[in-house]
Amino acid sequence: MIVVMDLHVGEKELQAVENVLQQYGYRCHLIRGEQRIVIGAVGATKGEIPPVLETMPGVEKVLRVMQPYKLVSREMKPDDTVIRTGSVCLGGGYVSVLAGPCAVESLEQLITAAREVKKYGAAALRGGAFKPRTSPYAFQGLMETGLEYLRRAREETGLAVVTEVMNPADVELVAETADIIQIGARNMQNFPLLKEVGQLRRPVLLKRGLAATVEEWLMAAEYIMSGGNYQVILCERGIRTFETSTRNTLDVSAIAVAKRLSHLPVIADPSHAGGNWRLVQPLALASLAAGADGLLVEVHPDPQSALCDGPQSLNPQHFGELMAAVEGLVALLGKKLVRGVERQ
Amino acid sequence: MIVVMDLHVGEKELQAVENVLQQYGYRCHLIRGEQRIVIGAVGATKGEIPPVLETMPGVEKVLRVMQPYKLVSREMKPDDTVIRTGSVCLGGGYVSVLAGPCAVESLEQLITAAREVKKYGAAALRGGAFKPRTSPYAFQGLMETGLEYLRRAREETGLAVVTEVMNPADVELVAETADIIQIGARNMQNFPLLKEVGQLRRPVLLKRGLAATVEEWLMAAEYIMSGGNYQVILCERGIRTFETSTRNTLDVSAIAVAKRLSHLPVIADPSHAGGNWRLVQPLALASLAAGADGLLVEVHPDPQSALCDGPQSLNPQHFGELMAAVEGLVALLGKKLVRGVERQ
Amino acid sequence: MIVVMDLHVGEKELQAVENVLQQYGYRCHLIRGEQRIVIGAVGATKGEIPPVLETMPGVEKVLRVMQPYKLVSREMKPDDTVIRTGSVCLGGGYVSVLAGPCAVESLEQLITAAREVKKYGAAALRGGAFKPRTSPYAFQGLMETGLEYLRRAREETGLAVVTEVMNPADVELVAETADIIQIGARNMQNFPLLKEVGQLRRPVLLKRGLAATVEEWLMAAEYIMSGGNYQVILCERGIRTFETSTRNTLDVSAIAVAKRLSHLPVIADPSHAGGNWRLVQPLALASLAAGADGLLVEVHPDPQSALCDGPQSLNPQHFGELMAAVEGLVALLGKKLVRGVERQ
Amino acid sequence: MIVVMDLHVGEKELQAVENVLQQYGYRCHLIRGEQRIVIGAVGATKGEIPPVLETMPGVEKVLRVMQPYKLVSREMKPDDTVIRTGSVCLGGGYVSVLAGPCAVESLEQLITAAREVKKYGAAALRGGAFKPRTSPYAFQGLMETGLEYLRRAREETGLAVVTEVMNPADVELVAETADIIQIGARNMQNFPLLKEVGQLRRPVLLKRGLAATVEEWLMAAEYIMSGGNYQVILCERGIRTFETSTRNTLDVSAIAVAKRLSHLPVIADPSHAGGNWRLVQPLALASLAAGADGLLVEVHPDPQSALCDGPQSLNPQHFGELMAAVEGLVALLGKKLVRGVERQ
Repeated sequence: MIVVMDLHVGEKELQAVENVLQQYGYRCHLIRGEQRIVIGAVGATKGEIPPVLETMPGVEKVLRVMQPYKLVSREMKPDDTVIRTGSVCLGGGYVSVLAGPCAVESLEQLITAAREVKKYGAAALRGGAFKPRTSPYAFQGLMETGLEYLRRAREETGLAVVTEVMNPADVELVAETADIIQIGARNMQNFPLLKEVGQLRRPVLLKRGLAATVEEWLMAAEYIMSGGNYQVILCERGIRTFETSTRNTLDVSAIAVAKRLSHLPVIADPSHAGGNWRLVQPLALASLAAGADGLLVEVHPDPQSALCDGPQSLNPQHFGELMAAVEGLVALLGKKLVRGVERQ
Repeated sequence: MIVVMDLHVGEKELQAVENVLQQYGYRCHLIRGEQRIVIGAVGATKGEIPPVLETMPGVEKVLRVMQPYKLVSREMKPDDTVIRTGSVCLGGGYVSVLAGPCAVESLEQLITAAREVKKYGAAALRGGAFKPRTSPYAFQGLMETGLEYLRRAREETGLAVVTEVMNPADVELVAETADIIQIGARNMQNFPLLKEVGQLRRPVLLKRGLAATVEEWLMAAEYIMSGGNYQVILCERGIRTFETSTRNTLDVSAIAVAKRLSHLPVIADPSHAGGNWRLVQPLALASLAAGADGLLVEVHPDPQSALCDGPQSLNPQHFGELMAAVEGLVALLGKKLVRGVERQ
Repeated sequence: MIVVMDLHVGEKELQAVENVLQQYGYRCHLIRGEQRIVIGAVGATKGEIPPVLETMPGVEKVLRVMQPYKLVSREMKPDDTVIRTGSVCLGGGYVSVLAGPCAVESLEQLITAAREVKKYGAAALRGGAFKPRTSPYAFQGLMETGLEYLRRAREETGLAVVTEVMNPADVELVAETADIIQIGARNMQNFPLLKEVGQLRRPVLLKRGLAATVEEWLMAAEYIMSGGNYQVILCERGIRTFETSTRNTLDVSAIAVAKRLSHLPVIADPSHAGGNWRLVQPLALASLAAGADGLLVEVHPDPQSALCDGPQSLNPQHFGELMAAVEGLVALLGKKLVRGVERQ
Repeated sequence: MIVVMDLHVGEKELQAVENVLQQYGYRCHLIRGEQRIVIGAVGATKGEIPPVLETMPGVEKVLRVMQPYKLVSREMKPDDTVIRTGSVCLGGGYVSVLAGPCAVESLEQLITAAREVKKYGAAALRGGAFKPRTSPYAFQGLMETGLEYLRRAREETGLAVVTEVMNPADVELVAETADIIQIGARNMQNFPLLKEVGQLRRPVLLKRGLAATVEEWLMAAEYIMSGGNYQVILCERGIRTFETSTRNTLDVSAIAVAKRLSHLPVIADPSHAGGNWRLVQPLALASLAAGADGLLVEVHPDPQSALCDGPQSLNPQHFGELMAAVEGLVALLGKKLVRGVERQ
C-alpha cells in the first residue's frame, strides 16, 4: 500500500500514520519527494487497509497495490476452473450453451422449450420460477410449481437445470431442483443471499450487476467462495450506460479482463444485454470471440406468447441457426462445444 | 399506448395487433402516415402493455403514454405525504436531519454519537447493525447486539432510530427496534425484501440504487406501497457515473424530478454521494436547495477510529456547523426544520 | 409524431397545438383516452418537429415516430455502401484492417511500421500527424512533417494512408496527403469540421464520441453526407462508462445496431477501446463477430519507445498473430479479407 | 510517481525501469514487499510520466502521485481568481448571473431579452450567433449578423456579452464582439480552439464536456492558461449518465471539487443540465449552495417561439422569480450578487 502525504506535514502526524500502519503489521518506507511525502507500506500478511488512514491529518490519498480478492484470483490458482454438472461443462477449453425461456410459464411450454434447445445442442435448460420484475403488478413467476416443472423437464430430456433464487429463505428449496443456481444482476451484491449460496456445494451462476465494476463482480464471487463453494460461473449480461438503442451495453472487454484476473469460467447473456432477439447472434458470437466459456440464451417455443422478455427471446429455428454459427466459431477458437445430448 | 408499425405491413398482421390490444381492453385508432402506420390504443383501465406486442410482425416500437406507477404518483395524490414518527417529520414543508455513525460499533460510540447529533438538532439517529460490505473479509456489523444498542440510545436520547435491513428474514427482528427501516441502495430492487417491508406499517427509507432511473426508484416504492405500507421516504444517495473524483455523483435533479412526480418525501444522503466529509456541507445544502425534505448524514464521534466510512463521516463539531447552515437555508426556503429535542 | 396532452386541457390549447402542427404541414388525428389526449400528426414531408411544441400549455410529451437522419439510413439505401480507396475495401462483405502507429514519430519509425503491417496483411497505414492530447505539455505531433512522412511511406509500400484532422483550417492540407481522413472521437460533434470534410470527395473515418449515442453518431455522419460526401466509415472505439478496468468500454452492440440502421461500413478500434495491447485481439475478434467491416489497430515497431499510446500498441509479431486469427474468423463469417499487398 | 512491479521480475528488467526513470530526472527508491516490488520515483522537476513505463516487462501499474495540471491548480495559486469584465464579477465572493436566449434570432428578440434580464439583475447577456446543432437540418445561428445584434444589445443596455465560438478561424471575429468567449461542451477538448483562445487576453467561459472528468476539464483550462490567457471561467452544465428523466445530470459535486482543486471561478448552467424550465430554479439554487460563483441561464422573451431550446428557457417573469430567490441565497451564503445595472 502507498500512502501519499502533504510535504508540509508535521513529524507528529507522520508518526501517527506510521503507528497505524505498524499496528496492522506493515513495515514503512518513507520517501520524501519535492512536493509530496510517500510511505510505502509492505509486509502485512492480511494486506488489510486500515479504514482510519484516509481521515488522518496530512494524508492525501491511499493507493492500493494489491487486489482485494484472493480465492477468485488467477494469481492464487493459475489454471482454469472447469465446472461440470450433468450435461454442462464450462471453462478450460469447454464451451456450453444454457438455453430456455425467461420464465417457466406452463409444463407444456417448458417441455417443448427443453426438447427444442436440446435438439440444437444446448447443454442445460434455463427457466425462471421466481422472477424479479420491475413492476409489482407484473407476472412474478410460478414459484414452487415452476420448480416442479423444471424437474419434469429434466427427467424428460436429461438436461441440467439453471434457475434463479432471489430470497435467502428459498435457497434450500431451489437447490433441491437446480443443478446450477442463478444469482441475478440485481442481487449481485445481495450479501445475505451470496453467503447462503456460499454454503451450498453446487455451481452458482453469478450475473454481473448493471453498475458493477469487474472488481466488485469478482468480490461478489469471493463472498461465495469464502463460504466454501468454489463452483462459481461469472456471467456478463450488459451494463447500464447512457446508450438507449440497446437495453444494456454488453461489455465484452469485461469478459476478457475477468478471464485474465480470475480462473473462474465466464459466460455471457446476449439476450438481456441487447434486449432484442435480432442482436442475440452478433452479441453471442462477439462474446465467444472475446473469450467467453459459454452462453446463456433465452429461447421460447413461441416468443409472441411469452409472459416476459418476449422481444429478446429466440424461437427454436433462430436458436438452431445460432448454434450452427456457435459451433463453427468454437472450433475456430480451438475450444470444444459440449452438447447436452452427447453427455447423457 | 402508441404502436408504431411498418407502412408496408399486411392487413393480417395489422388485424393481429388490433386483436391483441382489444383482448387487453384497448380501443384502437389507426393513423396511416407517409412512412409509418400508428395505432393509438386507449381505454384499458389497467393500462397494461401486452408483452407480446413488440415481437409481432410489422411492429417497430411501442411507446408508453402513461406512467407505470400509480400509488406513488402525484397524479393519484396531489398533496405531499408527511411522514411523522417520534421526533421526525418529513414532507409538506417539514425538514428533518437523520444523523449518526455508518455502523454501530459499541454502546459508548453510539450513545456519544446520539447525544452529539441531538445537541445540534438531528431529529433521528442513524446507525447500521447489519452492514452491506463489498468484501467478505470486512466488518459486517454487530447485528442483534447493534439493534440492542440502538434501543438503548433511543431510551437515552429520545431520538427515533433508523437502521438498515438486508435480509427478508430479518425484517421482523429489525422492525422491533427501528422507527424507520432503511433499504440500502444495493437492495433497491431486492423484491422479496420490498414485499416484506410492504407488510409493515412503519416508515421505510428507500435509497435509490446506484444505477436506478427515477422511474425504477418510484417503481420500487410502488412495490412497498402496493403491500399496504404507504410510509415511504425516498433517499437520493448518488449514482454511478464515469466521474471518479467523488465516490458517486449526487443527482440533485432527481430530487426535483421525484418531488414533481410523487407525493412522497425525498431526502438526500450527502455522505455516501461524495464519499468525503469535506463535500458533505456543499452537497447537503445543494440537496435542500433542490427541494429535499431532509438529510441523512454520517456523523461519528471520532471519524479516525470508525470501522467503516470514516473518510466521509463528519465529527460532531463539523456537524454543528452543517446544522447552522442548514437552519438558515431551510428558513430561507420557507420550510420548517424539525429538531429532535423539540418534540420530546 | 405523437403529441401527448393533459386530459383536462382546454379546447383553446388543443387548437393552438393543432394550428402549429398544421403550419408544419401535418394532418392531425385526435384520440381521447381515459387519462390523456393523444394527437397523431402525419403527412409532413420534412418531418420536422416544431421546437415550440414542448413548451405549449397542456403538452406533456412529444414522441418522435421517425428517425431524424435520412442519408445515412438503410431505409433510404437498403444496400451496403462499399468504400474503396487504394488498397482498402470496406463494407458489402469486404473487410480491411487499417494499422500503424498512434503518432508519426520519425520517417524510420513510420516506414518500418508500414512495411510490417503490410507484411501481415493490413490494407492501409494509419498514423497521426496532428495529435489531440489531454495535456498541453504532451507531444502534439509532427504536423506537416508527419504528413510528408506519410506520403513517403505510401510511396514505399503502396498502402493507403489514414490520418486525423482536428482543425477545419487544416482540412485542405491534410486531404492532400490522406486517402482516408479521420475525425477523432473528441471531434465527432465538431460541426465546423464535419461541414468542412463534407465538402471533400474522399472517404472520412468518423469515430464515435466517448459519450455519443448511436443516433448522434449517425447524425454526425449525416452532417458529412449532407455536404455531398457520401463516403463515410463509422468507427466504434469504446464509450465512457463507470468501468475503470479498461480505458473505455467497447460497445459491440453499437456495431450491430449501426449496421442495421445504416448502409455505411462500420469498423472498430480495439486499441483505444481497451487501452491495453493484451485486449486488442479479443476485442478485435469480438468486433468482427458482431458484424464489423474492418479494424483500426495501433501497431508500433517498438511499443516501448512510443511517444504516445505505447501500452495499447501491438508489436509487429503480435499483429501477425492477430491477422492470422482475423483471417480465419473473416472466412468463417463468409466475408472476404482484403490485404494491401493483393491490390497493388 | 509509483511503479508497481511483479515480485519475480529479474534484475535486468528492474534496472531497465530505473534507467528510464533516471533519464526523466527521477531518483528511485526500491521497496520489496511480500507480493510486489514498488519503486517510488521522486525529484523530477517536470514530473512527466515516461510513456514507455507501462509497456516495460515486469511493470504492473504506474500510479501518479501528483496532479497533471499546474496553472489551474489551487496549490499553485491559493487565492480565488476574480474575473471582472464590464458588468460581470465572478469569484472571490462575487456572484454574477449571465442570462439571455439560447440563440440570437432577431434584433428585436435580443434587445427585448437584454432589457428583461437586465431589469431583474443579470450581469451579462448571453446569446449564440454560431450554434452547434445535432442535426445539419436545424437552425445554425445568424452568425455575423448575430454578432452585430449582440453589439447593438450591449450599446442599448450596457450589459457585457457572452457568445460561443466553435471554429478556430472565427475566434478573432467573435473576440471583436464578445466580452466573454464561450467554449461549448462539445468543444471542451477541441484543442486547436483551446490554443486559439489561449492567445486572447479576454475571459473564456469553458463548459465541461458531457463525458469529461473534473481532471480533464481542468486540463482543458490548462490548455488555455498555458497560452497565457489566465481568465478562465469553468462552467458545469450537466454530464451524460444513464438517467433519462432529465436532459443531463447536473453534477453539483464537481462544482465543489473544482473549487477545491482550482482557484478559477466555477459557474453552473441549470438550463442545459435539466433541459426543462421547471428545473432551472431548483438546479440554480443547488449549484449556488454547492459553491458556484455564478449562473448561466437561458431566458427568452417568448419561449414558445424560440428557434432552439425553448423547453428549457425561462420567460422574463420566471427569471425575475429566480433572481429573487438567488439574491436571498447569495446573501445567506455570505457572498455578493453583482447586478449589471449597478456597475454601469
